[in-house]
Amino acid sequence: MSLKPAHCNETKKANHNGIVQPLLTDLYQITMAYAYWKSRKDQSLAVFDLFFRKNPFNGEFTIFAGLEECLKFLDGFSYSTSDIEYIRQILPSHIEDEFYQYLSQLTAKDIKLFAIKEGTVVFPRIPLIRVEGPLIVAQLLETTLLNLINYASLMATNAVRYKMAAGKLKLFEFGLRRAQGPDGGLSASKYSYMGGFDGTSNVLAGKLFHIPVKGTHAHSYITSFNNFDEISTKKLAPKEQGAPRDLLQLAIEYRKELISIFNVLLSEVNDGELAAFVSFAIALPNSFMALVDTYDVKKSGLINFCATALALHDLGYQALGIRLDSGDLAYLSCVAREYFRKISQIHNIPYFEHLTIMASNDINEETIVSLNEQIHCIDSFGIGTHLVTCQKQPALGCVYKMVELNGQPRIKLSQDVGKVTIPGRKNVYRLYGEAGYALIDILQRTTESAPVEGKKVLCRHPFQESKRAFVTPSKVEELLQIRFDQGRLCKPLESLQEIRETVEESLKILRSDIKRTLNPTPYKVSVSDDLYHYLHTLWLANAPIGELS
Amino acid sequence: MSLKPAHCNETKKANHNGIVQPLLTDLYQITMAYAYWKSRKDQSLAVFDLFFRKNPFNGEFTIFAGLEECLKFLDGFSYSTSDIEYIRQILPSHIEDEFYQYLSQLTAKDIKLFAIKEGTVVFPRIPLIRVEGPLIVAQLLETTLLNLINYASLMATNAVRYKMAAGKLKLFEFGLRRAQGPDGGLSASKYSYMGGFDGTSNVLAGKLFHIPVKGTHAHSYITSFNNFDEISTKKLAPKEQGAPRDLLQLAIEYRKELISIFNVLLSEVNDGELAAFVSFAIALPNSFMALVDTYDVKKSGLINFCATALALHDLGYQALGIRLDSGDLAYLSCVAREYFRKISQIHNIPYFEHLTIMASNDINEETIVSLNEQIHCIDSFGIGTHLVTCQKQPALGCVYKMVELNGQPRIKLSQDVGKVTIPGRKNVYRLYGEAGYALIDILQRTTESAPVEGKKVLCRHPFQESKRAFVTPSKVEELLQIRFDQGRLCKPLESLQEIRETVEESLKILRSDIKRTLNPTPYKVSVSDDLYHYLHTLWLANAPIGELS
Repeated sequence: MSLKPAHCNETKKANHNGIVQPLLTDLYQITMAYAYWKSRKDQSLAVFDLFFRKNPFNGEFTIFAGLEECLKFLDGFSYSTSDIEYIRQILPSHIEDEFYQYLSQLTAKDIKLFAIKEGTVVFPRIPLIRVEGPLIVAQLLETTLLNLINYASLMATNAVRYKMAAGKLKLFEFGLRRAQGPDGGLSASKYSYMGGFDGTSNVLAGKLFHIPVKGTHAHSYITSFNNFDEISTKKLAPKEQGAPRDLLQLAIEYRKELISIFNVLLSEVNDGELAAFVSFAIALPNSFMALVDTYDVKKSGLINFCATALALHDLGYQALGIRLDSGDLAYLSCVAREYFRKISQIHNIPYFEHLTIMASNDINEETIVSLNEQIHCIDSFGIGTHLVTCQKQPALGCVYKMVELNGQPRIKLSQDVGKVTIPGRKNVYRLYGEAGYALIDILQRTTESAPVEGKKVLCRHPFQESKRAFVTPSKVEELLQIRFDQGRLCKPLESLQEIRETVEESLKILRSDIKRTLNPTPYKVSVSDDLYHYLHTLWLANAPIGELS
Repeated sequence: MSLKPAHCNETKKANHNGIVQPLLTDLYQITMAYAYWKSRKDQSLAVFDLFFRKNPFNGEFTIFAGLEECLKFLDGFSYSTSDIEYIRQILPSHIEDEFYQYLSQLTAKDIKLFAIKEGTVVFPRIPLIRVEGPLIVAQLLETTLLNLINYASLMATNAVRYKMAAGKLKLFEFGLRRAQGPDGGLSASKYSYMGGFDGTSNVLAGKLFHIPVKGTHAHSYITSFNNFDEISTKKLAPKEQGAPRDLLQLAIEYRKELISIFNVLLSEVNDGELAAFVSFAIALPNSFMALVDTYDVKKSGLINFCATALALHDLGYQALGIRLDSGDLAYLSCVAREYFRKISQIHNIPYFEHLTIMASNDINEETIVSLNEQIHCIDSFGIGTHLVTCQKQPALGCVYKMVELNGQPRIKLSQDVGKVTIPGRKNVYRLYGEAGYALIDILQRTTESAPVEGKKVLCRHPFQESKRAFVTPSKVEELLQIRFDQGRLCKPLESLQEIRETVEESLKILRSDIKRTLNPTPYKVSVSDDLYHYLHTLWLANAPIGELS
């Protein structure tokens, strides 16, 4: 065990509570394991690459996430007695006892895992993870590693895209109730924070991952109040000093003034709503944020909110703002801002003009882009369903392919050229230009020496012979780093905060035309001249010559 | 604790391993809880309905699932010391100690939960769950209940739709690697089995939920063999008796015969593939199922499979069949069946004609429908991504709305009529016609007496005055049953197998035009005349009269 006990226990428990275990796999991994063992191929030295073939969401980049979970999985890889018992039940009865003894002693101690740093921006075909070790173990890791990387990377990428669309606006993840199960919700909170979100509504995610949590109240809170009589405590002590005052009475007075300023009839303003706001403000006077669309936003919600906020102001408290959860968000946000501005002027309260306006109704990436093309006064978004289920594309297609066995390259051919694998043990280098942007990624055989700064490198398209370019990098970054070896982590796990910073830094090295939503430019992933020939020689050798007749 | 310890421990651990706990909620539930407590509304008697507004996947029905998880959640509802500590950190510092003491003693003991039987077919607007009890607890349950019901019901419904599309073909869930996280994968296996799938590839799901597991080998198994020399054990003992024989040699002999029958050149058949098949057959001679599309299906995969299957036959074993994972599945399945038929005749082996043909390449509901409109010879499908992520619609929109507080009805108005809630504590009855099909569901106030068999009932559209019908039911079924009361489960939890049977039975009572994929007929959900008037009187009373000027 290489993880420090305290850290290890806490974070292990934090994530998937024991669901991530060797049995979280496809049965065929176990039947293959038996067949490998039976044919004495189990200790063959295999190399597998984990990669994807297409960026998600019609974009041209992906954020690599989920590595921490993979490393913890490797670190704890071992079948329990009850696992072995279960496997014995589902495999044929003729299988040798020796195999089960063998399985029960299997760990990942002979596995080497190389990976790109979690949070890095990545592209199709580059190995995100390279696994080297005994065929049987390397194969048994497949499904679990894919499961841990696919959704994590998809979710982090989705979050980054929302964040880019939102610009400087703040974003909060509110999706727990619609997520794909309890852990779907937890993972969504974690990876959206990794991708740059400012917080979550998910309390457990806050507790486990130290993510800021955010929330006010629901429509049901508002509708639970019918009238003023339902507030039991109406008094609130001033923030600094002095005797408690009747906040409800103060708010009622302000409301009289406001309905005349904003041309509203008293009969149009809902009393239950004011009661709800006042009671909430008394409970949480320093963080009063109100949902203003239970009844009419302009004629009731905003009037009641402003009345309560002014009353709070008299006692030395600053309200935070409002949340809009329905209707024309751009328009209503401007109406709200106008109310705030007017009151700010009349009462000479500068902060009032800048109260937060949060919107949270069925927001997706396109809504944010479209809102930002209109005039609006929204400061932050609360985002649920579309974000957490990645509605636009709910799965990333990472695959895990054998590229070498006992030193011999392995290639998977396909009539679809995009599905041909790049054989052999490979390194990946990111080449940077003078402006600091990444120019191209290049895959090389591990037997080749690394590209050198200031020296020309021939970069070739892996499949199209005529597509090639000389690149003289100002900086060369080796992407794959060893992370697990000899049964131990090679360096400590990064914190979520650190990975979040990696995401931010990594995005900066990407030109904006690659990141944009509409018709982004593809980033180039190339192979060295040596790898190009290696690949194509193998391809020809493995493709049988047909005969036309 | 009302669950039997053994059962309880096992199934609790089985599902979400402690992730399902009171902190798996939105922060606003806790801020509202504090505000309710502060304004002494916490013990008000609230009634909440959990329901959805629209069936998923452009269909006209939904399967209700996730109830077992909800009941276990209620049964164990309690904040741990570390939960309270964490809540204290995130709430403002002025909050009274008494509140935290209060929270730490909170359980669901005063909650009554009524629910429809898990696995039942359900429709928009009917309460799937009705929660009654102290406002503070009922409110605190919201997010977790929604999270547990939404994906479970979506997934079970998706599985049922695939199953209906597939008709008599067998279906297996293969989606773990692409699911939304580890628990997303586990839940997908569980709820697709509930919806009628025949098994899963997910070993942990098999272990935890007693679902049949299925699997053969991957392309990497095939490509790990280059030639005949790589098989260490070539001999296999006959099934019944006799000396072991060289299976590889037998297969090579049969292959010679087959290439002449099927007009293939020996150079076109891959030796590594045959080595892989033979080694796998030696390991698992009673369950030999081969992936035949690593190289050319017609010229290599099928030839090598049939050669191995014939060799196995000589030793008294029956191969199971093949899996196709790429290409034109309809066409290739017919080619395969034709090979099997020919060999069956030539060698007089009847079962050979009926070997299983499984297809598993990117299958979704539409692919199955479209394949079934063509000529094909597929027996079963292995389905991954589209099934488990519910790609067509990755979230169900269940909501949880307060309908009564301290005996007073609550209504949520909306400019969108579909979003107006139906107020008050309600029962739901399903009325059946003589043919045994369900005719209509009717919501009634709990103060009304139940509809009676053979007696005319007036069923009204909840919002359209002129839409109403008299129905004389042959059978009346009360859908909501009490499941949790006085801190205990009112009856034992059902097994997954029992719920799976409920799904099957429940679908039988639905007319086929409601279940069909293309332009299904909506099933009617009505309200009683009494509830109609109650709803509309409240609606008018709560909608303020505007003034045009």
